[in-house]
Amino acid sequence: MDALKQRIQKDGKILNGDILKVDSFLNHQIDVAFLNDIGAAFKERFKDCEVTKILTIEASGIAVGYATSQFFNNCPIVFAKKGSASNMSEDAYHAPLHSYTRGADFVISVSKKYLSKDDKILIVDDFLANGEALKALLSVVRQAGCQLVGCGIVIEKAYQPGGDMIRKQGVRVESLARIAAMSVENGIEFC
Amino acid sequence: MDALKQRIQKDGKILNGDILKVDSFLNHQIDVAFLNDIGAAFKERFKDCEVTKILTIEASGIAVGYATSQFFNNCPIVFAKKGSASNMSEDAYHAPLHSYTRGADFVISVSKKYLSKDDKILIVDDFLANGEALKALLSVVRQAGCQLVGCGIVIEKAYQPGGDMIRKQGVRVESLARIAAMSVENGIEFC
Repeated sequence: MDALKQRIQKDGKILNGDILKVDSFLNHQIDVAFLNDIGAAFKERFKDCEVTKILTIEASGIAVGYATSQFFNNCPIVFAKKGSASNMSEDAYHAPLHSYTRGADFVISVSKKYLSKDDKILIVDDFLANGEALKALLSVVRQAGCQLVGCGIVIEKAYQPGGDMIRKQGVRVESLARIAAMSVENGIEFC
Repeated sequence: MDALKQRIQKDGKILNGDILKVDSFLNHQIDVAFLNDIGAAFKERFKDCEVTKILTIEASGIAVGYATSQFFNNCPIVFAKKGSASNMSEDAYHAPLHSYTRGADFVISVSKKYLSKDDKILIVDDFLANGEALKALLSVVRQAGCQLVGCGIVIEKAYQPGGDMIRKQGVRVESLARIAAMSVENGIEFC
């Protein structure tokens, strides 16, 4: 998605330690018109998939999910909650999540009521790097026995192992911008 | 908003300890078409206010913000992040937040870059009870010197003190459903 690559080049900030900040439009301040275009781009890629539900994870996945749902007949969004192991309950599917950004371990939870075997799930998220969040969401989808249509990612750090690891499992992963390399000195290079 | 009251009566679950669960449509699974109607209801109430930015708080405020922005010319949303005192930085406005639901103390953060004195801010959130989240967001707006248009709340527990406390400060608070009383035995009574 060229408009996205241009926006990342224009507004993205690279910080020490491999962090790409895009909080001016994606995950702190949200440019709604632009996210609507992102939703349309996911629709284009998954248009024949009869998606019935969008699954994402709090917090920054929610706006991406909302933008996308509108192009899939306003299908429901379910967002996984991040908590600790002490929040686990029998009414929910759980999966472990290690956050490299925060250096902490979480457990994600999705209520069993909101995923059914008949659902065709599109997972969306803002970032894919080590693939921890996606792995946890995929575990939830498998536990629920839903059909997985694929994963729509806004920005993939393709030089990190998550995307390849998950594609090798036979999961369809569509990333709108794939970063091949990134550094404070040389900026961003897309695949 | 009658459709909201009906939806709360139909799908809301009252749990011990004064908790109203509306996670089938508002804050875990999201009914996008219904939230769009909620956005339209806020537009109706704040239509003459020239809102330039919507401020909310992660996680469940984000979908409400997205729904609402679309009726205010897709104006940007900024969502406050919840963290601990150790996450504080000079680049952000901060305010303390006590969560009664979680029994924990947080600090909310909003980057200084995304609020300007020229902004006319509409705050939105899913719930108003003790008013802790709203108080923290109002503190951020004051620190930034923005003009506050008002607060749009989906569900207010009017029998708790938050709404009155904030209205007494001269802040306009518009709640789409106001609960006068609620119990497992007697169900929900709206104002």
